Amino acid sequence: MFDGRPNAQDRMLRERAERVIPGGMYGHLSTALLPESYPQFFRSGRGAHLIDADGNRCLDLMCAFGPNLFGYADPEIDAAYVAQLADGDCLTGPTESMIELAEMMTGMVTHADWAMFCKNGTDATTMALTVARAHTGRKTVVLAQGSYHGAAPWCTPRRGGVTAEDRANQVHCIYNNVASLEEAVRKAGDDLAAIFATPFKHDSFVDQHGVDHAYAQRARELCDKHGAMLVVDDVRGGFRLARDCSWSLVGVQPDLSAWGKCIANGHPISALLGSDKAKKAASSIYVTGSFWFASAAMAASLATLRRVRDTDYLKRLEAMGTRLRSGLAERAEAAGLSIRQTGPVQMPLVLFDDDPDLRRGFFWCEAMLRRGVYTHPWHNMFIGAAMTDADIDAALDAAAESFAALSAAIPTLGPVERLAALFG
Amino acid sequence: MFDGRPNAQDRMLRERAERVIPGGMYGHLSTALLPESYPQFFRSGRGAHLIDADGNRCLDLMCAFGPNLFGYADPEIDAAYVAQLADGDCLTGPTESMIELAEMMTGMVTHADWAMFCKNGTDATTMALTVARAHTGRKTVVLAQGSYHGAAPWCTPRRGGVTAEDRANQVHCIYNNVASLEEAVRKAGDDLAAIFATPFKHDSFVDQHGVDHAYAQRARELCDKHGAMLVVDDVRGGFRLARDCSWSLVGVQPDLSAWGKCIANGHPISALLGSDKAKKAASSIYVTGSFWFASAAMAASLATLRRVRDTDYLKRLEAMGTRLRSGLAERAEAAGLSIRQTGPVQMPLVLFDDDPDLRRGFFWCEAMLRRGVYTHPWHNMFIGAAMTDADIDAALDAAAESFAALSAAIPTLGPVERLAALFG
Repeated sequence: MFDGRPNAQDRMLRERAERVIPGGMYGHLSTALLPESYPQFFRSGRGAHLIDADGNRCLDLMCAFGPNLFGYADPEIDAAYVAQLADGDCLTGPTESMIELAEMMTGMVTHADWAMFCKNGTDATTMALTVARAHTGRKTVVLAQGSYHGAAPWCTPRRGGVTAEDRANQVHCIYNNVASLEEAVRKAGDDLAAIFATPFKHDSFVDQHGVDHAYAQRARELCDKHGAMLVVDDVRGGFRLARDCSWSLVGVQPDLSAWGKCIANGHPISALLGSDKAKKAASSIYVTGSFWFASAAMAASLATLRRVRDTDYLKRLEAMGTRLRSGLAERAEAAGLSIRQTGPVQMPLVLFDDDPDLRRGFFWCEAMLRRGVYTHPWHNMFIGAAMTDADIDAALDAAAESFAALSAAIPTLGPVERLAALFG
Repeated sequence: MFDGRPNAQDRMLRERAERVIPGGMYGHLSTALLPESYPQFFRSGRGAHLIDADGNRCLDLMCAFGPNLFGYADPEIDAAYVAQLADGDCLTGPTESMIELAEMMTGMVTHADWAMFCKNGTDATTMALTVARAHTGRKTVVLAQGSYHGAAPWCTPRRGGVTAEDRANQVHCIYNNVASLEEAVRKAGDDLAAIFATPFKHDSFVDQHGVDHAYAQRARELCDKHGAMLVVDDVRGGFRLARDCSWSLVGVQPDLSAWGKCIANGHPISALLGSDKAKKAASSIYVTGSFWFASAAMAASLATLRRVRDTDYLKRLEAMGTRLRSGLAERAEAAGLSIRQTGPVQMPLVLFDDDPDLRRGFFWCEAMLRRGVYTHPWHNMFIGAAMTDADIDAALDAAAESFAALSAAIPTLGPVERLAALFG
């Protein structure tokens, strides 16, 4: 579907990509399950905005799926990266910046006494699992059904190439359902190594839910009772919900927490944080990566975390997210549409009522993009601190027009072909 | 043991690190199994040289365990990184540079028709395993005993926190032993998904061995016969042995090859390359990472690969490595010492005869470092293209003195305390 925005360059790039990249693209940045007119390739990013391969500019409500917290190409954070690069990045040993970063993160995150740095969020969640098993000498982990904890064989959401053994020693519960959590722990018996949890229920395709205090508290109690480790996977939510581990908002401290995404504003680094109780086990596992000790991303992370610590960014994220939410609600209602906005306002998901196969969401997202706003039809979005009130206004203006267009189009909307396999 | 080089700063940093990093450091850059006087922390790197936290300068024969191919802080490659950073690095989608890089790598590597990029070498080897399993619908992988293929639970060399299920579906053979390979394949029966191999036997602590042509050839035949995938793990050796997959030197093409380390001269990126046969399976697995699509490391990789393709770097690595090897042999002999130099000259390992617990190697390495040359007592080293003939001369001068010092010290050498657990 050609929507009036130039896309010849993107089409050409897709054809080239098809030849040398399996499926033309892979992973979370593939547009295979996004509206057809969405660009696959971009040219540049600055602040809160992207320019796609054809030169179309848009306000980006995805923030690179999280990493962009303070704006693309932030001058100060990137300068910290570049300055360290000139001194030395990936050397035969780490620099002092690694210690500084560990000191800074453990200073900010209440439960944390130590840090290990890595590259992928999946590295951090996998290390959490390994540390918990080393600490307890047990194997079983309790996870909430549908929660995303990364893309290694033990946790990737698609099963291609994954064996039953890769998924062994896992018991699933239902997020926020205390009885199911207790039942899962019962099933684990005397082999419970860890309970994993995302900071809130941020599964794709469905309404988001904040964590119930009772659920978080019960997870903590069960881990204490059984000598298991409580792991909060804060890769996606970390520092967008709090200046501390996200579950600090409900007064629950984990033993281990996984971080990544925005901790260096898009520069490649992730981290596992842990409490003293887990330190000996953490020192007993062997984990490493060619670039895990490189200093430039650590310098960028220090610059990012200083801004997390010292500015009112979190208040601004909340204020912008709140204004976006109430503004969208008003404009949807004015167009006679019923939408559900769930998740924390800084990480919103917008779903339409009466839209079981997402045809309304897809239409609306395409209409938004045509008006210069990149939204996502089934994954939570991200508010970034480089956004301004004027950006939110622009998004709301685009939304009013897009809701109206959707309202008029509903009687003739057909199913979304590329989602047929999902909603068949 | 204080050896006369200032190390007060390093000691202080170690104490700080102990408090916030498990074991004070982890992974391949921990100095826990290196001579006591080795610095844990560095300040900077330029070209072929490092400056440690105390300001001591040394020629670095480790090249960051491989990533440094063209010198630390290479102006041209880093400029490519920085220029792309200013345009956009980690965005909501990839840029054209991802396609260019896939085109360039598949253009250079004979067996490769497609590429997928990731961050860790372990990401690439794990993806190879997953693709092979998706392609064949089988589970069993044949690996050589002792070969390093990364640090995920399925392959990490230390078992802390690793379960038996993590290591399921693996059959081990002996590198370069055709009969053991055939026996392993027999054991896999009708479940053989893949045979993995490093480009040469580069296991730690023992003599290195180039791959026998017959072994490589038989691995290829067995994979063809059983419809399994041949995987060459070129993360460590790639582009130091050839401008193609390393097994091209023995005329054997794999189906999948894993790359990392030096493909962007230290900037964080790794890759899985594959042949058309494996493309459909590769598009069926779900793998991703927050920073896998970031463009700056891809721009740096393009600059690095252009230099790989267009310069005589490989000839120079070989020439310098050859000169180092023959020079070391002469100087050891002159000091009445018998050493074994194994592995390709670009990735040399030096072990001493009559040195079952490495006390000679440790003494010699400390003597070398005191003279400004950083060597490794049990892991292969790396020659880099930023080294000069003068650097090799300096290393050989240091070696002559260090061999002489060792020769004099042998009668009084005691065991190395920190290796006691390894060599009992």
